[in-house]
Amino acid sequence: MSTVDQPVPAPVIARSTDPLGVEVPSTVPTHWYNLNADLPEPVPPHLHPGTHQPLTPPDLAPLFPMALIEQEVSTERYVEIPQTVREIYAMWRPSPLVRAHRLERVLGTRARIYYKYEGVSPVGSHKPNTAVAQAYYNAVEGITKLTTETGAGQWGASLSMACSLLGLTCEVWQVRASYDAKPYRRFQMETYGSVCHPSPSDLTEAGRAILAEMPDTTGSLGMAISEAVEAAVKDPEAHYSLGSVLNHVMLHQTVIGQEVLVQLAEAGERQADVVFGCAGGGSNLAGLTFPLIGQNLREGTTTRSVACEPAACPSLTQGEYRYDHGDVAGLTPLLKMHTLGKDFVPPSIHAGGLRYHGMSPMVSHAVNLGLMEAVAVEQDDAFAGGVLFARAEGIIPAPESTHAVATAIDYARTAQEGEVILIGLSGNGVLDLPAYSAYV
Amino acid sequence: MSTVDQPVPAPVIARSTDPLGVEVPSTVPTHWYNLNADLPEPVPPHLHPGTHQPLTPPDLAPLFPMALIEQEVSTERYVEIPQTVREIYAMWRPSPLVRAHRLERVLGTRARIYYKYEGVSPVGSHKPNTAVAQAYYNAVEGITKLTTETGAGQWGASLSMACSLLGLTCEVWQVRASYDAKPYRRFQMETYGSVCHPSPSDLTEAGRAILAEMPDTTGSLGMAISEAVEAAVKDPEAHYSLGSVLNHVMLHQTVIGQEVLVQLAEAGERQADVVFGCAGGGSNLAGLTFPLIGQNLREGTTTRSVACEPAACPSLTQGEYRYDHGDVAGLTPLLKMHTLGKDFVPPSIHAGGLRYHGMSPMVSHAVNLGLMEAVAVEQDDAFAGGVLFARAEGIIPAPESTHAVATAIDYARTAQEGEVILIGLSGNGVLDLPAYSAYV
Repeated sequence: MSTVDQPVPAPVIARSTDPLGVEVPSTVPTHWYNLNADLPEPVPPHLHPGTHQPLTPPDLAPLFPMALIEQEVSTERYVEIPQTVREIYAMWRPSPLVRAHRLERVLGTRARIYYKYEGVSPVGSHKPNTAVAQAYYNAVEGITKLTTETGAGQWGASLSMACSLLGLTCEVWQVRASYDAKPYRRFQMETYGSVCHPSPSDLTEAGRAILAEMPDTTGSLGMAISEAVEAAVKDPEAHYSLGSVLNHVMLHQTVIGQEVLVQLAEAGERQADVVFGCAGGGSNLAGLTFPLIGQNLREGTTTRSVACEPAACPSLTQGEYRYDHGDVAGLTPLLKMHTLGKDFVPPSIHAGGLRYHGMSPMVSHAVNLGLMEAVAVEQDDAFAGGVLFARAEGIIPAPESTHAVATAIDYARTAQEGEVILIGLSGNGVLDLPAYSAYV
Repeated sequence: MSTVDQPVPAPVIARSTDPLGVEVPSTVPTHWYNLNADLPEPVPPHLHPGTHQPLTPPDLAPLFPMALIEQEVSTERYVEIPQTVREIYAMWRPSPLVRAHRLERVLGTRARIYYKYEGVSPVGSHKPNTAVAQAYYNAVEGITKLTTETGAGQWGASLSMACSLLGLTCEVWQVRASYDAKPYRRFQMETYGSVCHPSPSDLTEAGRAILAEMPDTTGSLGMAISEAVEAAVKDPEAHYSLGSVLNHVMLHQTVIGQEVLVQLAEAGERQADVVFGCAGGGSNLAGLTFPLIGQNLREGTTTRSVACEPAACPSLTQGEYRYDHGDVAGLTPLLKMHTLGKDFVPPSIHAGGLRYHGMSPMVSHAVNLGLMEAVAVEQDDAFAGGVLFARAEGIIPAPESTHAVATAIDYARTAQEGEVILIGLSGNGVLDLPAYSAYV
């Protein structure tokens, strides 16, 4: 052995969806939890954009593999996680549930504060929980390429990583504002072997139509979705993948809350009294809270779940609850959700992952049923909470997560003796440090 | 509870060095391991820069607390880790030891490959292992401020985090090349409340002298050390902190290798047959390998340890083994080490953390005694290994770590059936994505 004397080739390498055959620790969840099994009223169905009738599986087949279409309408309480997915989850799952002792000391609170930290995944957020599942089901069905949109880039990077691990190629349309302001996420996608375009682009009809009307637009998730959907529909070997909003995405994220239930019990806690999670499209929030809401419904626990959204994009606290499209071009199904209107272009806030006009139909339904509360947080308040948390606990939260952190800190200052507060830390802010710098 | 209706104040908050009084899992090491107890010959002593006589504790008192000075010359095999330090370690320790099944599959190797992943710390590298210990001992001795130098910024960010957690302020001189090229690390330091200057600066005599001679220099760790040392000596409330090279730093990092010994046994392995770690100042390498070398010396295991250094800064493979200063100005003690000469200015490679003219005296001594091997790796080969690893295992390694990754991959291709290969993954490359982008 001497030095490395030849370049190591580094192509995207086709990998098997076969399990590695290794034992996965029992602490990695074996099933996803489906809140639809326990809801007092079913979630309103998605409607066909043309006929306005409930969607049928064939309507979705050009976009999604059948396994995900089935999960989208499933009412089974538990859905088994494939072994290959569990093997990949085991790289970072279970994610830590941490008692925030130092934050408690700094605040002088009478509450016990915990945080569930999803930033330990290889891309630093909760998004791989569904990215890996989606890439897996597509690979099993013989699909060779996935298209998607991304805002700040957590989702695009997560799907890129998942596609790399499962031997798919990946093409990403990233909202122009983030593409220009946050190149690190694009570099991350490219390192995993993906191709990333700014959106709107001239590569799709949808993109060209938007550019003709608004040549200087900084883009939006709704626009980028239109482009990615169009690209998938036109390529018989490709499917589309969505990082939030849809029911099957909420399902995959429930590994977060299921681990919380086990970890809280191990910590000797009967329940979390109040849980704070940030809300953009809803997947982090749903993943964190749905298993706890399900426990409330089945077993009579009394955990309060609080959605923390940005004041600049307040779909739950200011939007209407009605059917709307998920994208700007109106290519997606109509979803019953809290929405600011598909043409709403949110201001260019630092928490790019919360910059979406709508909200998951399941989260919207849960809020509508009174199973969940919602608050809006100003950006400066969110960062103040994020900095306080970083200096007390060492972890710099993602700008998205700071909305939950700040709300929890505010609550903890006047909490009752012995209350148990849980913060959903959806990711770390390592690639959002310029935003912190601007605030500090 | 409604929205957060007032900004949360976010000053640096003085914190206690008292333990939180919480139970730390037994999997977090209780002691550091000191290779000096098991070496066949003692490490040559550091010499006073003026008298060239072995240093005495009073010589070092202006820079370091007495506890660290004692550790610098200790020959005790095990040094107890203070409870407060263990509580902070428990945030991310034990770090994972992971079987690289997917990498094995991609390479078609006959070996079993493991990696020890230090990127799970809040700043993404192994550096907090010593930063927390150093900040703790200084805080206990009543010091209120630490000064230090940093290259790529991992060390400066780590010490900033540690100071924040333990209520110290922190002033950092960062090598100009990295200060300009990698602003994210500075943002990270500032978020933790530190002040960061580019080095050479006009704030110190050493800096002004260097600038007068080389006004366009991009700096070096040796220059930045001169500035940070000078600033500490001139301020009676401040001490200096070094992120590598010295014996007490090697000591603190041994939590890595001690965990490896336990984790390999849990995985059913008798020993690692060969271990690859990147080497800049030597702390990651020492932390990873010293406990394994100690086991060789005491128990007859036969683990090979390989230092992987950059071809652009090859102190172990090309440097002389002699007494030299740790800094450019000659303010530091004379250290017996492999050195390229204190005036050597390494080229501006991406692996900024490996860009140092010297090498830890303990690592140099171990190489000199034949207890450790060394290889030099070209930058492109290192990145090729890093990209291959990222696409197989999901984690994008730090540029520093890719030197170990690439060497291990090369070795694994022709390894014997059943050989056990261990890679030290000293950190992740999230803040080095532009370097990957340039390579890809």
